[in-house]
Amino acid sequence: MNDPLQIAFQGEPGAYSEVAALEYFDPGTKTIPQNSFEQVFSRVSEGGCDYGLIPIENSLAGSIHRNYDLMLRHDLHITGEYHLRVSHCLLALPGVQLSDIRRVHSHPQALAQCEIRLAELELEPVVEADTAGSARLLCEWNDRHAAALASRRAAEVYGLDILVDHMEDNPANFTRFLAISRQPLEPEDPLREEYKTSVVFSMDNRPGALFKALSVFALREIDLTKIESRPIAGRPWDYMFYIDFAGFAGTPVCRRALEHLQEITTFWRVLGSYPRHRLEYSSEKNGSK
Amino acid sequence: MNDPLQIAFQGEPGAYSEVAALEYFDPGTKTIPQNSFEQVFSRVSEGGCDYGLIPIENSLAGSIHRNYDLMLRHDLHITGEYHLRVSHCLLALPGVQLSDIRRVHSHPQALAQCEIRLAELELEPVVEADTAGSARLLCEWNDRHAAALASRRAAEVYGLDILVDHMEDNPANFTRFLAISRQPLEPEDPLREEYKTSVVFSMDNRPGALFKALSVFALREIDLTKIESRPIAGRPWDYMFYIDFAGFAGTPVCRRALEHLQEITTFWRVLGSYPRHRLEYSSEKNGSK
Repeated sequence: MNDPLQIAFQGEPGAYSEVAALEYFDPGTKTIPQNSFEQVFSRVSEGGCDYGLIPIENSLAGSIHRNYDLMLRHDLHITGEYHLRVSHCLLALPGVQLSDIRRVHSHPQALAQCEIRLAELELEPVVEADTAGSARLLCEWNDRHAAALASRRAAEVYGLDILVDHMEDNPANFTRFLAISRQPLEPEDPLREEYKTSVVFSMDNRPGALFKALSVFALREIDLTKIESRPIAGRPWDYMFYIDFAGFAGTPVCRRALEHLQEITTFWRVLGSYPRHRLEYSSEKNGSK
Repeated sequence: MNDPLQIAFQGEPGAYSEVAALEYFDPGTKTIPQNSFEQVFSRVSEGGCDYGLIPIENSLAGSIHRNYDLMLRHDLHITGEYHLRVSHCLLALPGVQLSDIRRVHSHPQALAQCEIRLAELELEPVVEADTAGSARLLCEWNDRHAAALASRRAAEVYGLDILVDHMEDNPANFTRFLAISRQPLEPEDPLREEYKTSVVFSMDNRPGALFKALSVFALREIDLTKIESRPIAGRPWDYMFYIDFAGFAGTPVCRRALEHLQEITTFWRVLGSYPRHRLEYSSEKNGSK
Protein backbone atom coordinates (compact mmCIF):
# COMPACT_ATOMS: atom_id res chain seq x y z
CA MET A 1 0.00 0.00 0.00
CA ASN A 2 1.25 3.46 -0.87
CA ASP A 3 0.97 6.28 1.62
CA PRO A 4 -1.95 8.56 0.73
CA LEU A 5 -1.12 11.57 -1.45
CA GLN A 6 -0.55 14.75 0.54
CA ILE A 7 -2.10 17.87 -1.01
CA ALA A 8 -1.30 21.39 0.19
CA PHE A 9 -4.08 23.97 -0.11
CA GLN A 10 -4.45 27.56 1.11
CA GLY A 11 -7.06 28.15 3.79
CA GLU A 12 -8.72 26.40 6.70
CA PRO A 13 -10.36 22.96 6.60
CA GLY A 14 -13.60 23.34 4.63
CA ALA A 15 -12.15 26.02 2.27
CA TYR A 16 -13.19 25.82 -1.39
CA SER A 17 -9.61 24.87 -2.27
CA GLU A 18 -9.98 21.79 -0.05
CA VAL A 19 -13.33 20.96 -1.67
CA ALA A 20 -11.64 21.12 -5.09
CA ALA A 21 -8.71 18.96 -3.88
CA LEU A 22 -11.05 16.27 -2.54
CA GLU A 23 -13.01 16.20 -5.81
CA TYR A 24 -9.94 16.32 -8.08
CA PHE A 25 -7.59 13.83 -6.40
CA ASP A 26 -8.27 10.16 -5.63
CA PRO A 27 -10.34 9.20 -2.58
CA GLY A 28 -8.17 8.79 0.51
CA THR A 29 -6.03 11.80 -0.37
CA LYS A 30 -4.84 13.82 2.62
CA THR A 31 -5.43 17.59 2.42
CA ILE A 32 -2.98 19.77 4.35
CA PRO A 33 -4.11 23.35 5.16
CA GLN A 34 -1.58 26.19 4.66
CA ASN A 35 -1.77 29.81 5.77
CA SER A 36 -0.75 31.36 2.46
CA PHE A 37 -0.25 30.59 -1.23
CA GLU A 38 3.51 31.05 -0.65
CA GLN A 39 3.39 28.22 1.87
CA VAL A 40 1.54 25.98 -0.59
CA PHE A 41 4.34 26.49 -3.12
CA SER A 42 7.06 26.04 -0.48
CA ARG A 43 5.57 22.84 0.95
CA VAL A 44 5.46 21.28 -2.51
CA SER A 45 8.92 22.59 -3.51
CA GLU A 46 10.51 21.23 -0.34
CA GLY A 47 8.84 17.83 -0.67
CA GLY A 48 6.54 18.15 2.36
CA CYS A 49 3.52 17.61 0.09
CA ASP A 50 3.13 15.71 -3.19
CA TYR A 51 0.92 18.33 -4.85
CA GLY A 52 -0.52 21.75 -4.27
CA LEU A 53 -3.92 22.83 -5.55
CA ILE A 54 -4.21 26.56 -6.20
CA PRO A 55 -7.07 28.70 -7.58
CA ILE A 56 -6.01 30.53 -10.74
CA GLU A 57 -9.19 32.20 -12.05
CA ASN A 58 -12.80 32.68 -11.06
CA SER A 59 -15.53 33.24 -13.63
CA LEU A 60 -16.88 36.25 -11.69
CA ALA A 61 -13.84 37.73 -9.99
CA GLY A 62 -11.11 37.14 -12.59
CA SER A 63 -7.56 35.84 -12.40
CA ILE A 64 -5.65 35.25 -9.19
CA HIS A 65 -2.49 36.91 -10.44
CA ARG A 66 -0.54 36.32 -7.27
CA ASN A 67 -0.44 32.62 -8.13
CA TYR A 68 0.96 33.31 -11.60
CA ASP A 69 3.75 35.30 -9.90
CA LEU A 70 4.44 32.40 -7.56
CA MET A 71 4.61 29.98 -10.52
CA LEU A 72 7.46 32.12 -11.88
CA ARG A 73 9.29 32.16 -8.55
CA HIS A 74 9.17 28.38 -8.00
CA ASP A 75 10.40 25.54 -10.13
CA LEU A 76 7.12 23.60 -10.11
CA HIS A 77 5.00 22.15 -12.92
CA ILE A 78 1.27 22.27 -13.60
CA THR A 79 0.03 18.67 -13.82
CA GLY A 80 -3.74 19.18 -13.89
CA GLU A 81 -6.68 21.55 -13.87
CA TYR A 82 -10.09 21.35 -12.20
CA HIS A 83 -13.16 23.56 -12.49
CA LEU A 84 -15.14 23.78 -9.26
CA ARG A 85 -18.62 25.21 -9.14
CA VAL A 86 -18.56 27.50 -6.11
CA SER A 87 -21.82 27.23 -4.21
CA HIS A 88 -22.28 28.96 -0.89
CA CYS A 89 -24.34 27.36 1.90
CA LEU A 90 -25.86 29.21 4.85
CA LEU A 91 -24.52 27.33 7.89
CA ALA A 92 -25.67 27.55 11.53
CA LEU A 93 -25.28 25.68 14.82
CA PRO A 94 -27.29 22.43 15.01
CA GLY A 95 -30.99 22.99 15.70
CA VAL A 96 -30.92 26.73 14.91
CA GLN A 97 -33.80 27.91 12.66
CA LEU A 98 -33.46 30.38 9.80
CA SER A 99 -35.82 32.71 11.71
CA ASP A 100 -33.26 32.85 14.59
CA ILE A 101 -30.51 34.22 12.35
CA ARG A 102 -29.70 37.96 12.39
CA ARG A 103 -26.11 38.17 11.08
CA VAL A 104 -24.14 36.31 8.42
CA HIS A 105 -20.34 36.06 8.64
CA SER A 106 -18.11 35.36 5.63
CA HIS A 107 -15.38 36.56 3.28
CA PRO A 108 -16.30 39.88 1.56
CA GLN A 109 -16.39 38.21 -1.89
CA ALA A 110 -18.82 35.48 -0.71
CA LEU A 111 -21.02 38.10 0.96
CA ALA A 112 -21.02 40.14 -2.27
CA GLN A 113 -21.92 37.07 -4.34
CA CYS A 114 -24.99 36.47 -2.13
CA GLU A 115 -25.94 40.16 -1.73
CA ILE A 116 -29.49 39.95 -3.20
CA ARG A 117 -30.37 36.74 -1.35
CA LEU A 118 -29.10 38.10 1.99
CA ALA A 119 -31.16 41.27 1.51
CA GLU A 120 -34.29 39.18 0.77
CA LEU A 121 -33.71 37.24 3.99
CA GLU A 122 -33.02 40.52 5.86
CA LEU A 123 -29.68 39.23 7.18
CA GLU A 124 -26.87 41.58 8.14
CA PRO A 125 -23.53 40.76 6.44
CA VAL A 126 -20.43 40.72 8.68
CA VAL A 127 -16.96 40.56 7.11
CA GLU A 128 -14.45 37.87 8.15
CA ALA A 129 -11.09 36.78 6.74
CA ASP A 130 -12.44 33.66 4.96
CA THR A 131 -15.45 31.43 4.40
CA ALA A 132 -14.40 28.28 6.27
CA GLY A 133 -12.91 30.40 9.07
CA SER A 134 -16.34 32.00 9.57
CA ALA A 135 -17.84 28.53 10.07
CA ARG A 136 -15.15 27.74 12.66
CA LEU A 137 -15.75 31.06 14.49
CA LEU A 138 -19.50 30.33 14.64
CA CYS A 139 -18.71 27.18 16.65
CA GLU A 140 -16.22 28.97 18.90
CA TRP A 141 -18.70 31.74 19.69
CA ASN A 142 -21.60 29.28 20.01
CA ASP A 143 -23.73 32.09 18.56
CA ARG A 144 -27.31 30.98 17.78
CA HIS A 145 -28.22 34.25 16.04
CA ALA A 146 -25.41 34.10 13.51
CA ALA A 147 -24.75 32.07 10.35
CA ALA A 148 -21.75 31.61 8.05
CA LEU A 149 -21.56 31.50 4.25
CA ALA A 150 -19.23 28.63 3.37
CA SER A 151 -18.96 25.31 1.56
CA ARG A 152 -21.00 22.16 2.19
CA ARG A 153 -17.69 20.63 3.30
CA ALA A 154 -17.31 23.31 6.02
CA ALA A 155 -20.66 22.13 7.46
CA GLU A 156 -19.22 18.58 7.76
CA VAL A 157 -15.89 19.74 9.21
CA TYR A 158 -17.45 21.92 11.93
CA GLY A 159 -20.66 19.93 12.53
CA LEU A 160 -23.00 22.70 11.37
CA ASP A 161 -26.46 22.52 9.80
CA ILE A 162 -27.09 23.71 6.24
CA LEU A 163 -30.06 26.09 6.50
CA VAL A 164 -30.06 27.11 2.81
CA ASP A 165 -27.88 25.92 -0.06
CA HIS A 166 -27.10 27.73 -3.36
CA MET A 167 -27.17 31.14 -1.70
CA GLU A 168 -25.27 32.75 -4.60
CA ASP A 169 -27.12 35.27 -6.79
CA ASN A 170 -25.37 34.15 -9.99
CA PRO A 171 -25.06 30.37 -10.50
CA ALA A 172 -22.30 30.80 -13.13
CA ASN A 173 -19.66 30.95 -10.40
CA PHE A 174 -16.69 28.69 -11.18
CA THR A 175 -13.15 28.62 -9.97
CA ARG A 176 -10.43 27.01 -12.04
CA PHE A 177 -7.77 25.27 -9.94
CA LEU A 178 -4.32 24.08 -11.00
CA ALA A 179 -2.49 21.10 -9.53
CA ILE A 180 1.24 21.78 -9.10
CA SER A 181 4.02 19.27 -8.53
CA ARG A 182 7.82 18.95 -8.50
CA GLN A 183 7.72 16.63 -11.53
CA PRO A 184 6.11 17.39 -14.90
CA LEU A 185 3.48 15.00 -16.18
CA GLU A 186 4.91 12.38 -18.54
CA PRO A 187 2.01 10.51 -20.16
CA GLU A 188 2.79 7.40 -22.20
CA ASP A 189 0.56 8.47 -25.07
CA PRO A 190 -0.04 12.23 -25.04
CA LEU A 191 -2.25 12.01 -28.15
CA ARG A 192 -4.81 9.76 -26.45
CA GLU A 193 -6.27 12.44 -24.22
CA GLU A 194 -7.10 16.11 -24.67
CA TYR A 195 -4.23 18.15 -23.22
CA LYS A 196 -3.62 21.79 -22.51
CA THR A 197 -0.28 23.57 -22.11
CA SER A 198 0.30 26.76 -20.12
CA VAL A 199 3.16 29.00 -21.22
CA VAL A 200 4.36 32.41 -20.08
CA PHE A 201 6.55 34.81 -22.07
CA SER A 202 7.63 38.42 -22.42
CA MET A 203 8.80 40.33 -25.48
CA ASP A 204 10.30 43.64 -26.49
CA ASN A 205 7.45 46.14 -26.43
CA ARG A 206 7.07 46.68 -30.19
CA PRO A 207 3.92 47.00 -32.33
CA GLY A 208 2.92 43.61 -33.68
CA ALA A 209 5.13 41.65 -31.26
CA LEU A 210 2.20 39.81 -29.68
CA PHE A 211 0.77 39.10 -33.11
CA LYS A 212 4.04 37.43 -34.13
CA ALA A 213 4.03 35.37 -30.94
CA LEU A 214 0.47 34.19 -31.58
CA SER A 215 1.35 33.36 -35.18
CA VAL A 216 3.54 30.48 -33.99
CA PHE A 217 0.34 28.80 -32.79
CA ALA A 218 -2.02 29.96 -35.55
CA LEU A 219 0.32 28.83 -38.36
CA ARG A 220 0.22 25.33 -36.85
CA GLU A 221 -3.54 25.39 -36.18
CA ILE A 222 -2.99 25.13 -32.44
CA ASP A 223 -6.03 26.48 -30.58
CA LEU A 224 -5.56 29.03 -27.79
CA THR A 225 -7.87 28.54 -24.81
CA LYS A 226 -6.80 31.53 -22.72
CA ILE A 227 -4.68 34.64 -23.09
CA GLU A 228 -3.85 37.30 -20.60
CA SER A 229 -1.40 40.16 -20.40
CA ARG A 230 -0.32 41.57 -17.10
CA PRO A 231 2.21 44.09 -15.86
CA ILE A 232 5.52 42.66 -14.68
CA ALA A 233 5.98 43.19 -10.92
CA GLY A 234 8.41 46.06 -10.35
CA ARG A 235 8.16 47.15 -14.01
CA PRO A 236 4.47 48.03 -14.06
CA TRP A 237 4.26 49.00 -17.74
CA ASP A 238 6.06 46.00 -19.19
CA TYR A 239 3.86 43.04 -19.83
CA MET A 240 4.06 39.31 -19.34
CA PHE A 241 1.78 37.15 -21.46
CA TYR A 242 0.10 34.01 -20.18
CA ILE A 243 -1.28 31.65 -22.80
CA ASP A 244 -3.00 28.28 -22.57
CA PHE A 245 -3.09 26.28 -25.79
CA ALA A 246 -4.57 22.92 -26.79
CA GLY A 247 -2.00 20.13 -26.98
CA PHE A 248 0.85 18.45 -25.10
CA ALA A 249 4.16 20.38 -25.12
CA GLY A 250 6.18 17.26 -26.01
CA THR A 251 4.35 16.43 -29.26
CA PRO A 252 6.25 17.37 -32.46
CA VAL A 253 3.88 20.16 -33.55
CA CYS A 254 3.78 21.81 -30.10
CA ARG A 255 7.56 21.45 -29.71
CA ARG A 256 8.11 23.21 -33.03
CA ALA A 257 5.68 25.99 -32.05
CA LEU A 258 7.56 26.49 -28.76
CA GLU A 259 10.94 26.58 -30.57
CA HIS A 260 9.47 29.19 -32.89
CA LEU A 261 8.16 31.15 -29.85
CA GLN A 262 11.67 31.18 -28.41
CA GLU A 263 12.94 33.05 -31.49
CA ILE A 264 10.45 35.87 -30.86
CA THR A 265 10.40 36.27 -27.09
CA THR A 266 12.96 37.64 -24.62
CA PHE A 267 11.78 35.21 -21.93
CA TRP A 268 9.57 32.14 -22.01
CA ARG A 269 8.73 29.16 -19.87
CA VAL A 270 6.37 26.20 -20.16
CA LEU A 271 4.45 26.01 -16.88
CA GLY A 272 3.13 22.54 -17.67
CA SER A 273 1.04 20.25 -19.90
CA TYR A 274 -2.00 18.56 -18.36
CA PRO A 275 -5.30 16.88 -19.26
CA ARG A 276 -8.04 19.35 -20.13
CA HIS A 277 -10.97 19.42 -17.71
CA ARG A 278 -14.29 20.28 -19.35
CA LEU A 279 -17.22 20.88 -17.07
CA GLU A 280 -20.74 20.21 -18.31
CA TYR A 281 -22.50 23.38 -17.34
CA SER A 282 -26.17 24.23 -17.10
CA SER A 283 -27.62 26.91 -14.86
CA GLU A 284 -29.99 24.26 -13.43
CA LYS A 285 -27.09 22.06 -12.35
CA ASN A 286 -26.65 21.24 -8.72
CA GLY A 287 -23.68 22.25 -6.57
CA SER A 288 -20.18 20.97 -6.61
CA LYS A 289 -20.96 17.28 -6.94
CA MET B 1 -19.33 79.87 -13.47
CA ASN B 2 -20.13 76.27 -14.19
CA ASP B 3 -21.30 73.98 -11.41
CA PRO B 4 -18.49 71.72 -10.21
CA LEU B 5 -18.25 68.31 -11.93
CA GLN B 6 -19.93 65.53 -9.97
CA ILE B 7 -17.99 62.26 -9.89
CA ALA B 8 -19.48 58.98 -8.66
CA PHE B 9 -17.09 56.52 -7.00
CA GLN B 10 -17.58 53.25 -5.13
CA GLY B 11 -16.74 53.27 -1.45
CA GLU B 12 -16.73 55.62 1.51
CA PRO B 13 -15.08 59.06 1.67
CA GLY B 14 -11.31 58.46 1.74
CA ALA B 15 -11.49 55.35 -0.49
CA TYR B 16 -8.71 54.91 -3.07
CA SER B 17 -11.28 55.52 -5.82
CA GLU B 18 -11.93 58.97 -4.33
CA VAL B 19 -8.18 59.63 -4.13
CA ALA B 20 -7.90 58.77 -7.83
CA ALA B 21 -10.91 60.97 -8.71
CA LEU B 22 -9.44 63.98 -6.88
CA GLU B 23 -6.08 63.52 -8.63
CA TYR B 24 -7.54 62.84 -12.08
CA PHE B 25 -10.29 65.47 -12.33
CA ASP B 26 -9.91 69.25 -12.02
CA PRO B 27 -9.65 70.86 -8.58
CA GLY B 28 -13.06 71.74 -7.18
CA THR B 29 -14.62 68.51 -8.46
CA LYS B 30 -17.30 67.03 -6.19
CA THR B 31 -16.87 63.33 -5.36
CA ILE B 32 -20.09 61.42 -4.59
CA PRO B 33 -19.72 58.10 -2.70
CA GLN B 34 -21.79 55.11 -3.90
CA ASN B 35 -22.39 51.76 -2.19
CA SER B 36 -21.65 49.59 -5.22
CA PHE B 37 -20.15 49.63 -8.69
CA GLU B 38 -23.69 49.11 -10.06
CA GLN B 39 -24.72 52.36 -8.40
CA VAL B 40 -21.76 54.20 -9.93
CA PHE B 41 -22.88 53.09 -13.40
CA SER B 42 -26.55 53.89 -12.66
CA ARG B 43 -25.83 57.37 -11.28
CA VAL B 44 -23.88 58.27 -14.40
CA SER B 45 -26.41 56.62 -16.78
CA GLU B 46 -29.33 58.47 -15.19
CA GLY B 47 -27.53 61.82 -15.24
CA GLY B 48 -27.13 62.18 -11.44
CA CYS B 49 -23.34 62.45 -11.91
CA ASP B 50 -21.22 63.71 -14.80
CA TYR B 51 -18.63 60.94 -14.58
CA GLY B 52 -17.89 57.75 -12.74
CA LEU B 53 -14.37 56.62 -11.85
CA ILE B 54 -13.98 52.86 -11.56
CA PRO B 55 -10.95 50.64 -10.86
CA ILE B 56 -10.32 48.21 -13.72
CA GLU B 57 -7.03 46.48 -12.87
CA ASN B 58 -4.47 46.37 -10.12
CA SER B 59 -0.83 45.48 -10.77
CA LEU B 60 -0.82 42.96 -7.89
CA ALA B 61 -4.39 41.67 -7.73
CA GLY B 62 -5.35 41.63 -11.44
CA SER B 63 -8.44 42.75 -13.32
CA ILE B 64 -11.69 43.85 -11.72
CA HIS B 65 -13.84 41.84 -14.10
CA ARG B 66 -17.11 42.90 -12.56
CA ASN B 67 -16.57 46.37 -14.01
CA TYR B 68 -16.02 44.97 -17.49
CA ASP B 69 -19.37 43.20 -17.14
CA LEU B 70 -21.02 46.44 -16.07
CA MET B 71 -19.50 48.27 -19.08
CA LEU B 72 -21.36 45.78 -21.29
CA ARG B 73 -24.64 46.27 -19.44
CA HIS B 74 -24.63 50.09 -19.60
CA ASP B 75 -24.43 52.43 -22.56
CA LEU B 76 -21.53 54.48 -21.21
CA HIS B 77 -18.19 55.49 -22.73
CA ILE B 78 -14.65 55.43 -21.38
CA THR B 79 -13.29 58.98 -21.58
CA GLY B 80 -10.06 58.65 -19.61
CA GLU B 81 -7.66 56.47 -17.66
CA TYR B 82 -5.59 57.14 -14.55
CA HIS B 83 -2.93 55.07 -12.81
CA LEU B 84 -2.90 55.55 -9.04
CA ARG B 85 -0.05 54.34 -6.89
CA VAL B 86 -1.77 52.64 -3.96
CA SER B 87 0.06 53.42 -0.75
CA HIS B 88 -1.36 52.35 2.59
CA CYS B 89 -0.92 54.53 5.69
CA LEU B 90 -1.23 53.35 9.28
CA LEU B 91 -3.83 55.69 10.80
CA ALA B 92 -4.72 56.21 14.47
CA LEU B 93 -6.63 58.63 16.69
CA PRO B 94 -4.84 61.96 17.30
CA GLY B 95 -2.04 61.70 19.85
CA VAL B 96 -1.89 57.90 19.83
CA GLN B 97 1.66 56.47 19.66
CA LEU B 98 2.69 53.50 17.53
CA SER B 99 3.63 51.66 20.77
CA ASP B 100 -0.04 51.94 21.90
CA ILE B 101 -1.33 50.03 18.87
CA ARG B 102 -2.27 46.35 19.17
CA ARG B 103 -4.69 45.72 16.28
CA VAL B 104 -4.91 46.95 12.68
CA HIS B 105 -8.27 47.06 10.89
CA SER B 106 -8.59 47.08 7.10
CA HIS B 107 -9.81 45.33 3.94
CA PRO B 108 -8.30 41.80 3.58
CA GLN B 109 -6.38 42.83 0.43
CA ALA B 110 -4.76 45.83 2.16
CA LEU B 111 -3.85 43.67 5.17
CA ALA B 112 -2.31 41.07 2.82
CA GLN B 113 -0.32 43.76 1.00
CA CYS B 114 1.22 44.89 4.31
CA GLU B 115 1.65 41.40 5.80
CA ILE B 116 5.44 41.50 6.35
CA ARG B 117 5.41 45.04 7.77
CA LEU B 118 2.54 44.25 10.16
CA ALA B 119 4.38 41.14 11.38
CA GLU B 120 7.57 43.21 11.99
CA LEU B 121 5.52 45.69 14.05
CA GLU B 122 3.80 42.78 15.86
CA LEU B 123 0.34 44.12 15.04
CA GLU B 124 -2.70 41.85 14.83
CA PRO B 125 -4.65 42.19 11.55
CA VAL B 126 -8.45 42.50 11.81
CA VAL B 127 -10.61 42.19 8.70
CA GLU B 128 -13.17 44.89 7.80
CA ALA B 129 -15.25 45.55 4.70
CA ASP B 130 -13.02 48.34 3.33
CA THR B 131 -10.05 50.59 3.99
CA ALA B 132 -11.74 53.98 4.44
CA GLY B 133 -14.56 52.33 6.41
CA SER B 134 -11.95 51.02 8.88
CA ALA B 135 -10.75 54.59 9.44
CA ARG B 136 -14.34 55.70 10.07
CA LEU B 137 -14.93 52.83 12.53
CA LEU B 138 -11.77 53.72 14.43
CA CYS B 139 -13.29 57.16 15.14
CA GLU B 140 -16.67 55.71 16.09
CA TRP B 141 -15.09 53.26 18.52
CA ASN B 142 -12.65 55.88 19.82
CA ASP B 143 -10.22 52.95 20.22
CA ARG B 144 -6.70 54.07 21.20
CA HIS B 145 -5.19 50.59 20.80
CA ALA B 146 -6.30 50.14 17.19
CA ALA B 147 -5.14 51.51 13.86
CA ALA B 148 -6.52 51.38 10.31
CA LEU B 149 -4.72 50.79 7.00
CA ALA B 150 -6.13 53.31 4.55
CA SER B 151 -5.25 56.23 2.27
CA ARG B 152 -3.67 59.53 3.28
CA ARG B 153 -6.97 61.09 2.22
CA ALA B 154 -8.83 58.95 4.80
CA ALA B 155 -6.65 60.54 7.52
CA GLU B 156 -7.84 64.00 6.38
CA VAL B 157 -11.50 62.97 6.10
CA TYR B 158 -11.66 61.41 9.58
CA GLY B 159 -9.13 63.64 11.37
CA LEU B 160 -6.67 60.81 12.09
CA ASP B 161 -2.88 60.87 12.51
CA ILE B 162 -0.58 59.07 10.08
CA LEU B 163 1.72 56.93 12.25
CA VAL B 164 3.54 55.23 9.34
CA ASP B 165 3.19 55.76 5.60
CA HIS B 166 4.12 53.34 2.75
CA MET B 167 3.16 50.31 4.82
CA GLU B 168 2.91 48.09 1.70
CA ASP B 169 5.48 45.31 1.26
CA ASN B 170 5.68 45.74 -2.52
CA PRO B 171 5.89 49.34 -3.80
CA ALA B 172 4.83 48.31 -7.34
CA ASN B 173 1.17 48.53 -6.36
CA PHE B 174 -0.85 50.46 -8.94
CA THR B 175 -4.50 50.58 -9.76
CA ARG B 176 -5.70 51.65 -13.19
CA PHE B 177 -8.96 53.60 -13.11
CA LEU B 178 -11.30 54.42 -16.00
CA ALA B 179 -13.46 57.52 -16.25
CA ILE B 180 -16.92 56.74 -17.68
CA SER B 181 -19.46 59.16 -19.07
CA ARG B 182 -22.70 59.31 -21.09
CA GLN B 183 -20.93 61.02 -24.00
CA PRO B 184 -17.87 59.72 -25.84
CA LEU B 185 -14.83 61.97 -26.02
CA GLU B 186 -14.71 64.05 -29.21
CA PRO B 187 -11.30 65.73 -29.40
CA GLU B 188 -10.75 68.36 -32.09
CA ASP B 189 -7.44 66.89 -33.15
CA PRO B 190 -7.13 63.22 -32.16
CA LEU B 191 -3.64 62.98 -33.65
CA ARG B 192 -2.19 65.63 -31.32
CA GLU B 193 -2.24 63.48 -28.21
CA GLU B 194 -1.48 59.83 -27.48
CA TYR B 195 -4.79 57.96 -27.37
CA LYS B 196 -5.88 54.48 -26.41
CA THR B 197 -9.04 52.65 -27.47
CA SER B 198 -10.73 49.85 -25.51
CA VAL B 199 -12.72 47.30 -27.49
CA VAL B 200 -14.52 44.11 -26.53
CA PHE B 201 -15.50 41.27 -28.87
CA SER B 202 -16.44 37.61 -29.06
CA MET B 203 -15.96 35.10 -31.88
CA ASP B 204 -16.91 31.61 -32.88
CA ASN B 205 -14.62 29.31 -30.91
CA ARG B 206 -12.38 28.07 -33.77
CA PRO B 207 -8.59 27.54 -33.88
CA GLY B 208 -6.88 30.67 -35.09
CA ALA B 209 -9.92 32.93 -34.58
CA LEU B 210 -8.13 35.18 -32.09
CA PHE B 211 -5.09 35.32 -34.37
CA LYS B 212 -7.30 36.60 -37.20
CA ALA B 213 -8.82 39.20 -34.91
CA LEU B 214 -5.37 40.43 -33.84
CA SER B 215 -4.23 40.53 -37.46
CA VAL B 216 -6.57 43.48 -38.13
CA PHE B 217 -4.36 45.50 -35.78
CA ALA B 218 -0.99 43.97 -36.67
CA LEU B 219 -1.50 44.46 -40.43
CA ARG B 220 -2.01 48.16 -39.77
CA GLU B 221 0.87 48.42 -37.25
CA ILE B 222 -1.50 49.34 -34.44
CA ASP B 223 0.07 48.50 -31.08
CA LEU B 224 -1.89 46.50 -28.52
CA THR B 225 -1.41 47.65 -24.92
CA LYS B 226 -3.57 45.04 -23.17
CA ILE B 227 -5.34 41.81 -23.99
CA GLU B 228 -7.48 39.63 -21.84
CA SER B 229 -9.83 36.73 -22.41
CA ARG B 230 -12.52 35.94 -19.91
CA PRO B 231 -15.44 33.53 -19.71
CA ILE B 232 -18.82 34.98 -20.69
CA ALA B 233 -21.17 35.14 -17.66
CA GLY B 234 -23.70 32.30 -17.89
CA ARG B 235 -21.67 30.56 -20.64
CA PRO B 236 -18.52 29.89 -18.64
CA TRP B 237 -16.49 28.26 -21.41
CA ASP B 238 -17.14 30.84 -24.12
CA TYR B 239 -14.76 33.74 -24.07
CA MET B 240 -15.03 37.47 -24.46
CA PHE B 241 -11.85 39.33 -25.47
CA TYR B 242 -10.89 42.72 -24.11
CA ILE B 243 -8.24 44.64 -26.04
CA ASP B 244 -6.72 48.08 -25.60
CA PHE B 245 -4.89 49.44 -28.63
CA ALA B 246 -2.93 52.63 -29.32
CA GLY B 247 -4.89 55.19 -31.31
CA PHE B 248 -8.19 57.06 -31.50
CA ALA B 249 -11.11 55.00 -32.85
CA GLY B 250 -12.26 57.78 -35.22
CA THR B 251 -8.98 58.10 -37.16
CA PRO B 252 -9.00 56.48 -40.65
CA VAL B 253 -6.55 53.67 -39.82
CA CYS B 254 -8.32 52.69 -36.58
CA ARG B 255 -11.74 52.93 -38.25
CA ARG B 256 -10.61 50.55 -40.99
CA ALA B 257 -9.18 48.13 -38.41
CA LEU B 258 -12.50 48.14 -36.54
CA GLU B 259 -14.46 47.56 -39.77
CA HIS B 260 -12.16 44.63 -40.48
CA LEU B 261 -12.70 43.34 -36.91
CA GLN B 262 -16.45 43.41 -37.48
CA GLU B 263 -16.06 40.93 -40.38
CA ILE B 264 -14.38 38.40 -38.06
CA THR B 265 -16.29 38.73 -34.78
CA THR B 266 -19.82 37.70 -33.77
CA PHE B 267 -20.08 40.64 -31.36
CA TRP B 268 -17.96 43.73 -30.86
CA ARG B 269 -18.20 47.11 -29.18
CA VAL B 270 -15.89 50.08 -28.76
CA LEU B 271 -15.91 50.99 -25.07
CA GLY B 272 -14.17 54.31 -25.68
CA SER B 273 -11.13 56.24 -26.91
CA TYR B 274 -9.23 58.34 -24.38
CA PRO B 275 -5.84 59.99 -23.73
CA ARG B 276 -3.18 57.54 -22.61
CA HIS B 277 -1.91 58.05 -19.07
CA ARG B 278 1.73 57.08 -18.60
CA LEU B 279 3.05 57.07 -15.07
CA GLU B 280 6.74 57.67 -14.44
CA TYR B 281 7.58 54.82 -12.15
CA SER B 282 10.53 54.21 -9.94
CA SER B 283 10.48 52.08 -6.82
CA GLU B 284 11.91 55.07 -4.93
CA LYS B 285 8.98 57.25 -5.88
CA ASN B 286 6.76 58.68 -3.17
CA GLY B 287 3.09 57.92 -2.64
CA SER B 288 0.12 59.06 -4.61
CA LYS B 289 1.02 62.74 -4.79
